[in-house]
Order: sequence, then C-alpha cells, then structure tokens
Amino acid sequence: MDIDSANTTAVTRMMEARPILKSVATARDVIPGMKDNLFLHAGPPIEWARMSGPLRGAIIGAMLFEGIAKSEAEAVSMVERGEVEFDACHHHGAVGPMAGVTSASMKVYVVENAEHGNKSFSNLNEGYGKVLRYGAYSQEVLKKLRWMNDVLGVALADALAVSNGIDMRALIAEALHMGDEGHNRNKAGSLLYLKLISPLIAKVVKDDAMESEVLQFIGDNALSVLNPVMAACKAMTDAAHGVEGSTIVTTMARNGTDFGIRVSGLGERQWFTAPAEIPVGLFFSGFSQADANPDIGDSAITETAGIGGFAMATAPAIVTFVGGTPKDAMNATLEMYEITFAESKYFTMPSLDFRGTPTGIDIRKVVELGITPRINTGIAHKNAGVGQVGAGLVRPPLTIFEQALLAYAEKYNL
Amino acid sequence: MDIDSANTTAVTRMMEARPILKSVATARDVIPGMKDNLFLHAGPPIEWARMSGPLRGAIIGAMLFEGIAKSEAEAVSMVERGEVEFDACHHHGAVGPMAGVTSASMKVYVVENAEHGNKSFSNLNEGYGKVLRYGAYSQEVLKKLRWMNDVLGVALADALAVSNGIDMRALIAEALHMGDEGHNRNKAGSLLYLKLISPLIAKVVKDDAMESEVLQFIGDNALSVLNPVMAACKAMTDAAHGVEGSTIVTTMARNGTDFGIRVSGLGERQWFTAPAEIPVGLFFSGFSQADANPDIGDSAITETAGIGGFAMATAPAIVTFVGGTPKDAMNATLEMYEITFAESKYFTMPSLDFRGTPTGIDIRKVVELGITPRINTGIAHKNAGVGQVGAGLVRPPLTIFEQALLAYAEKYNL
Repeated sequence: MDIDSANTTAVTRMMEARPILKSVATARDVIPGMKDNLFLHAGPPIEWARMSGPLRGAIIGAMLFEGIAKSEAEAVSMVERGEVEFDACHHHGAVGPMAGVTSASMKVYVVENAEHGNKSFSNLNEGYGKVLRYGAYSQEVLKKLRWMNDVLGVALADALAVSNGIDMRALIAEALHMGDEGHNRNKAGSLLYLKLISPLIAKVVKDDAMESEVLQFIGDNALSVLNPVMAACKAMTDAAHGVEGSTIVTTMARNGTDFGIRVSGLGERQWFTAPAEIPVGLFFSGFSQADANPDIGDSAITETAGIGGFAMATAPAIVTFVGGTPKDAMNATLEMYEITFAESKYFTMPSLDFRGTPTGIDIRKVVELGITPRINTGIAHKNAGVGQVGAGLVRPPLTIFEQALLAYAEKYNL
Repeated sequence: MDIDSANTTAVTRMMEARPILKSVATARDVIPGMKDNLFLHAGPPIEWARMSGPLRGAIIGAMLFEGIAKSEAEAVSMVERGEVEFDACHHHGAVGPMAGVTSASMKVYVVENAEHGNKSFSNLNEGYGKVLRYGAYSQEVLKKLRWMNDVLGVALADALAVSNGIDMRALIAEALHMGDEGHNRNKAGSLLYLKLISPLIAKVVKDDAMESEVLQFIGDNALSVLNPVMAACKAMTDAAHGVEGSTIVTTMARNGTDFGIRVSGLGERQWFTAPAEIPVGLFFSGFSQADANPDIGDSAITETAGIGGFAMATAPAIVTFVGGTPKDAMNATLEMYEITFAESKYFTMPSLDFRGTPTGIDIRKVVELGITPRINTGIAHKNAGVGQVGAGLVRPPLTIFEQALLAYAEKYNL
C-alpha cells in the first residue's frame, strides 16, 4: 500500500474542497438526524455523567432555550431520567465552537462543498463574554440567543437567499493576509463577511432600526465569521475522510473532558480519545489558570484544515489575546510543518514569503517526532453558568495519535 | 536653541493629535477660502503650463463636473484665459490623493483634531481604475463622481450626523494590526470604516436599493478609508507645524511635476521643491514603466505622519501590489528609523514586537545620512484622460531636504 499516495489524495481533497456558505436554516430542517430532544455537542461522544461544567451548562441553557425545561433543576432531572439524547456534532456534519451545543430550533449556517458535494453546519456566533457556548445560561444569555435566532438569523437567512453564497475558501485566504489565523483571531474575516453580507441585508431587512442592530452585531463581533469558517473547515476535512490507507487526521475535537481525533483511512465513527489538557494563556480580569476548564470545542477543526494555530505566523497580533510573543507565533507555524503532509495551495502567509500553511496532520509524523498539534483556543470556566475566562494555547495528548497509529497498523496489517 | 526639545514638541503634537472624522459636507461650505472658480490640487503650488497630464486631466474633469465647461476644449481655453484659479490643497487644510483636485461642489470629509482644535479636509475616494484623481474624465468617470456626490456623499453626511464621529487614530492603529500600512493598503481600514458607518447608514438611508449600493461601494473599495486617513494625517502633521526651531517635516506632497516639503520650524507656505521622481513598481496589464507619470499626490502625508511606506513592515501582503518581497517591506520600515525622530506611541507593528512606527522625519538626519523617505504610491499614466496604471515605490529628491536645511540654518543663524 502506498501511504504517501493515499495521503496525497486525502490532502488534495481537503485543499480542493470549495466550501460555499449557502444559507442559514433551522437545525431540525437541515441537519441530518436532528430531532427535538437531541442536543448535539462538541468533541467526541460523551455521556452526561462525564461532561464538564461548561458543557453541562450549555446543555441546560439549550434546554431552557428550547422551552423543554423551565429551570436548571428541571433540565437536570430530565437529563437524568434519560428524556433527552446527546450526540457529537461531528456525527451530523456539524461543528460548534466551545461546548458546541446545537438544538433543533437553533438557526445554523449551511455550507456546501461545491467540489465534492458534501454539506456541513454550524450554529451562529454569540460574541465574547457570558455566552452559551462557554456554559453560561442566564436570562441575559437566553435573551441574546432568542434575538440571534429570531432577528439576526432571519436577516442572514434572507440575505443569503438573495445571493449566490459566500466563497469561504477565498474569504479565509484573504483574512490570512490581514492578520487573522482563522480560529482565535477572525477580526478581518468577520469584516470581510460584513462586507459581503451587508449589501444583501440592506436589501432584505425592511426595518431600519433592526437592520442597524444586525449590522452592528455582525461588525462588533470579531468572531462573527468563526462558525462559517469552522463549517468550511468541516466541509474540507470531511472531503478528506475515508481515503483508504491515509494517515491524515480529519477531525480534532474536544468535549471539555476528552480530546478526540479521527483519521482518514480509519473508521467514520472511530475516535481515539484521552483526557483533554487544560489550556495555558491569558485570563480576563478576575480569573486565573485555576478557573480553566480542560480544552473544549470543535474549533480545532481549523487546525485540522491547516489554519488557526497552524497559521499563527501570519497573525502576530494574536499574542495580545493568547499570550507569548510574535516570535512564538512564528515558531508555532514553523513547528507544524514538521508534522504535516503538505503546504496549502490556497492559504498562504505573506510573512513567510507567501508559503502555504502546514496542512494535513500525519499521525506517523506526530508519533515519530513526538510533536503534537498546536491549537489556539478560548478558555471556558470549569463551572457551569460562568462563561469565557480567557484564551490561550493547548495541545492534544500524544497518546491518541499513538492509539490511532496502532489501530492503523492493525487494520492495514503493517 | 535646543533643536531636540523643539522636535520633541513637534512630534508629540503630531502623535497626540486626535483626529476625529466628524462630517461630510460640500467643499464650498467648509474649506477655508474655497470658491466656485477655485480648483485645489495635490502637491506644492504649480501653474497650468507646468502641470503634468494627469493633473491637467483631473482639472478638466472637475470643470466638467462643476458644469463651468462643457468640453475639454472649452475647459482648456477657460484655463488659458485665466478664468479659473488654482491652489495647493495644503494651503486650505485639505489633502487629496493623486491629482487631489477638489472643487467647490464636491463633498469632502471634515476631520477635527480633538486635541488641538485644527480641522482638515479630503474628498471622497473613487476606487481603482479610471478615476478623476488619476487624470481620467470620461462620461463614466463623471457619472460615478456625480453618484458619489449625490448618493454616497449624502448617505455618509447623514450617517456621520447621527454619530459622535469616528476616531481615526484608533482606526489606523487597528488597521496596522491587520496588515494595512495605511497608504497603498487600506483594506482592513476600509472594512473597519464600513463596520463603523454601516449601522449608521442603515438608520438614515430609507431606500433599500440605494442603501445596498452605498454599502457595496464602501465595502468593495479597498481605498474607501484612504481619504479620511489622509485627512487624519493632515490634522496630525498640521498640529506639528510652526514649532520654532523644529527640523521635523510636516508636509510631503507632489503635484506630478514637483515634489515639495515643508518643515515645522520654517514658514507656513515655505515649500522646498524639486522635480518629482518616477515611481518604480508593478503595472496593470497593458501598461509599463514608460507610461508612468512622475510622482503625484498629497498621500505622502501618510508617510509624513509615520504610516504608509514607513509602516510597510506590518503589511507584507502589500508586495503583491507594489512589488518586492516581504523582506523588502520589513527593510523599508527599518531604514526609516534612521531618519525619524521618534517612534509612534499609538501606531505599532506586531511583526516588530509592537514597536512604534518611525515618526517625524528629521531633515538633519536625511541630509546627514543621504537617506530619503520611502513612499508607497499609486502610479498615474503620464497622459491626461487615462487613469491609474500601477503602484509602486518612490522617494523624494534629496536636494529638497538640503534646501530646507540651508533655509533652516539661515533662519536660525546656525
């Protein structure tokens, strides 16, 4: 078996995928297998008993949002009576940042890969601070979620309906030339998104005050485009999955308890997991490292697709948010070339003479060199109901790559 | 006399100036000394006989726009009969990119320096290609100018009227962390401008199609914010002018024939001029170096204020537009530290560990080292009526700094 040839196929499919943001729709109408008592979450599958604080908080919040529970206590007892179901976003073509909790009534972005035909989904971004995805579920959090679903989501849906869609690969490529790395820094990308969506919103939203509020929200949230970017990366990495013999990682995801990966040449639902590490970084005023939950979120799909922590060399200003120096950011990218199979054809970094980003993590290289991927991440408070407390850097445990390589050797009789 | 102390005063005034974009208004109503037969232009003062093609073209276009001439021939004969007057934008608190031609009916940005109280002005940006500021004046060019004046300009005026103004120093600082240098690359700044202005435009423009068109125009023009940025730099550098004993340059400007500078400790209208160089750079398809006009435009006010070519280290992607490599861009900035008096307190560059941009050109250092300032610039076709043909780099002639230093020595009996 020619592993390099399989990896070339996988990485080429990943890079040649052309994710187009096509629409915004209600989750139950578009996400395969979505139903009213199902709550999707970030990372590999996990049962309630093992869920961390922020994931539990986000599930409680989503149950309140859906109106199937009236209080935290009621939500918890419903969960304990087995009246709701959980599954990984990744099992439904979806990805969500941090807790990633996505429920049936939520509006979601729909991305289509124009090259290979697969679809992907992600919820809408709430901005920074006390937000559901970090496990907060106060009235204020729920009120914002309702506005996002009923006003912002409708405006985005109507706007995209009168467009030909947004080419996310082109948007990401441009943002990487504007100091974004596409995971924790999506400032330029969010403004490029505003630029593309605002003339459409002007056409479809009739109420001036509402329209002004929508444009303000999109523009003020430097993470507005994170979720479409993640869905785009999901569409790219899904296109690379299932290539017989490939050792390329097609998923990295964390549920706040476990870090899980999947590999192109191994099974569709074959996760390799181990306890997630606690990110190290900069904390918001009043919080410290002791408050940090273990690593959480599907957003490591960005690194899986060759951006995020892998593209930090192009985003030196990110160190004000995640810590370290611009030199560290440069070194993070350079190190990732050691464990990747290719350099991106479309995502380039001016500061490295327009070199393509390190793309396609090869489990063989990770294990051989003992170098694990770098991930930029937000940091959630470890307790339910609090929210974001900082941002920083983290790596997956090496053992999951070792497990994957063993499973690979077994499957392919090596 | 303590020159360093004078320069500290001048550069501190330049950096501490806080330019706020307050409004858009008609030139005749706000620009001091503006009148119906007066045409302001970029650079030091110049008579018609010595004007280059693109400046003549822009003046003809502005006369057609004003309706005081019906044809090119009529415009030229009116000029030759002395029926119109010319003056430097800089003599009226104004700045304009390239030809910089500003006439009485044109809408202009009004910037106020909240720290020192002075005002500055700049016209609206037309985008790339066949545009008045590069000397084009076809019907298509005039039609766009009319739309800009009657639709875009009114929308911007109404939008700013319901705001507290836009803090241009903060906008520039943020754009420099997003890969802009603020002169030839204003991609991020223009999107930051869109972000701030779009919720206001949503409030004031009642017609959906018109509003959509306005947002599209602002978002699609990666130079939308150039003119407010230039006006901001003008407000900053004007605040630094007139400091007794200071050797800091407060104006660099070109009219397509001459390059002129002014110096803080010398006269308000005391220009030092010499023939402008021809920029070297990358040309649009179908054009070459042989088509290039000598250096033109007031936009070198950006370098005078410590951004533009001086901040290229933070904008490596600009080399796709002006030529060279990211390393050249880095070196351009490093070289400018040799001839400047200070490092900006507010404009920092992540790629240089957040070092402040080189700020405040000192004529003593320029002459002593023989290093002239680096300027990023658009390149105009040398003939009237054509337009932009490329973009590149240029430097002022050394002799004007020598002239200035002689005048300084004479004035201060050194």
